[in-house]
Amino acid sequence: MNPNTDAPLFEKVTLIGIGLIGSSMARSMRGKGLAAHIAVCTKSASSLEKARELGLGDSFTHDPVEAVAGADLVVLCTPLGAYERIAQKIGPALKPGAIVSDVGSVKQQAIEDILPHLTAGVHLVPGHPVAGTEHSGPEAGYAELFEGHWCILTPTVETDAGATEKVSELWRRMGSTVEVMDARHHDKVLAITSHLPHLIAYTIVGTATDLEDHMKGEVIKFSAGGFRDFTRIAASNPEMWRDVFLENKEAVLEMLQRFSEDLTALQRAIRWDEGETLFKMFERTRGIRRKVIEARQDKPDVKPEDAS
Amino acid sequence: MNPNTDAPLFEKVTLIGIGLIGSSMARSMRGKGLAAHIAVCTKSASSLEKARELGLGDSFTHDPVEAVAGADLVVLCTPLGAYERIAQKIGPALKPGAIVSDVGSVKQQAIEDILPHLTAGVHLVPGHPVAGTEHSGPEAGYAELFEGHWCILTPTVETDAGATEKVSELWRRMGSTVEVMDARHHDKVLAITSHLPHLIAYTIVGTATDLEDHMKGEVIKFSAGGFRDFTRIAASNPEMWRDVFLENKEAVLEMLQRFSEDLTALQRAIRWDEGETLFKMFERTRGIRRKVIEARQDKPDVKPEDAS
Repeated sequence: MNPNTDAPLFEKVTLIGIGLIGSSMARSMRGKGLAAHIAVCTKSASSLEKARELGLGDSFTHDPVEAVAGADLVVLCTPLGAYERIAQKIGPALKPGAIVSDVGSVKQQAIEDILPHLTAGVHLVPGHPVAGTEHSGPEAGYAELFEGHWCILTPTVETDAGATEKVSELWRRMGSTVEVMDARHHDKVLAITSHLPHLIAYTIVGTATDLEDHMKGEVIKFSAGGFRDFTRIAASNPEMWRDVFLENKEAVLEMLQRFSEDLTALQRAIRWDEGETLFKMFERTRGIRRKVIEARQDKPDVKPEDAS
Repeated sequence: MNPNTDAPLFEKVTLIGIGLIGSSMARSMRGKGLAAHIAVCTKSASSLEKARELGLGDSFTHDPVEAVAGADLVVLCTPLGAYERIAQKIGPALKPGAIVSDVGSVKQQAIEDILPHLTAGVHLVPGHPVAGTEHSGPEAGYAELFEGHWCILTPTVETDAGATEKVSELWRRMGSTVEVMDARHHDKVLAITSHLPHLIAYTIVGTATDLEDHMKGEVIKFSAGGFRDFTRIAASNPEMWRDVFLENKEAVLEMLQRFSEDLTALQRAIRWDEGETLFKMFERTRGIRRKVIEARQDKPDVKPEDAS
């Protein structure tokens, strides 16, 4: 699409929200020269100050209207619950032909929150980079976060194909493989691959938190037996995840219901000493792991300096 | 205890079962010269052949009675369900003063399965190295598996203190830190830190396996969102885990009940849009993760050549 890879893809990109994902986009885009100007906008005073210290952008403001002035691309990188309020504010301030995108983990509700506030001639290309770590905030980001990962885009039937392609190219240049998908289908797939795992991890770590005092220290000490993997998932940004569950309620509750039925079946098998049932259930899950490894999705994301 | 670290700790060690843990013990003991003779015993023809090829022992047999003849230390490294049958066989063949140990993830039932078959003068020192990977079999083991990990020993009140100390010294030399604990208490702690996490991981991977065909491929593709960590846990040895759940039934069902109540509470909060409840629950679990990192229990076990 853009044969001259030295020219920036966008003249001005505005990032609203500058946490793990926003700051990783800023670092990657700066490193690769993908935007001539990056405007950083966040309501948090400490995040804005941190972003400035880290040199994540060319301009910094708390005011989204100021931030989006003249922008070719605006990416919402806040928790999902803030989208509607932000869209209301920036809608009238966007320049004709501007593209609005986001990085949220729920896509149908994102469209419903943003689209009504955009004028004709502004293009919505919702996005979801399937990458992340347990850490939050501007200092947690790193330029390589998206490399080798999927980025799912969920344009609506009305979305301009050129706009979708431009956002696709941005993600490809940041190292991702792009998949275009229907928003509702995205929400169902992610409900099982991401939302339910997080809900369960939060739950079991919460269950351990409520244990009798004399056991708590030992839970930490002997966490290598499986528990520690759940603590990592359950350390993710609570505000972001609250919004994910509220905004993908239907799909999450559906998957949770299936999970609960399956867990009850296993519980029953344990209670009635049905070893053969347990063995068969444990045996078949190995095939899925093999496929995850074959798909090269088995390595956790780790910020380079945190790798041991 | 043994100031001359060049002399082997044991003249003859017999390993019954030579999977991930047994073969890692063999490699570590050989590397450090902890046993003058290692006898390897397993009922599987292919595992015995593989162990021989890998040079994991000095003698190899399918016959546990032959394997334990003259042994100072016998370690059961099979799934828990085989303990009673093996103990019945080897009980009369053990030499006076021999120590019997194991590496199983459930300790009270292990004692009940083994102890009645030992003669006076034979010492039972049950053990549980809190270390492992998703891989099984003699080729999956590696000498460094136990380094930096806890090994829990659960001697009974009758166990000879000298025998406990000798097994402790073996684990320390293999790189572990030893903790002595009551068997029933061990089983409760591990029910939440290890057994329940495995049960949940098996369940959610099973739930995904049952999805409609058009979603299955996407579940693999987008597993980086959290699901892949569960697939790793759910790839563990199904025979071993079947036995863990059957033999630690009471503690597992108790923790599962608590977990289910907590999950139901979260489910209700999602259904009724109780954002504040969700946020509070997700916020408090971060503290546990901080403590896991402080306790330096946060790095997964990876065989050196598998590390990327």
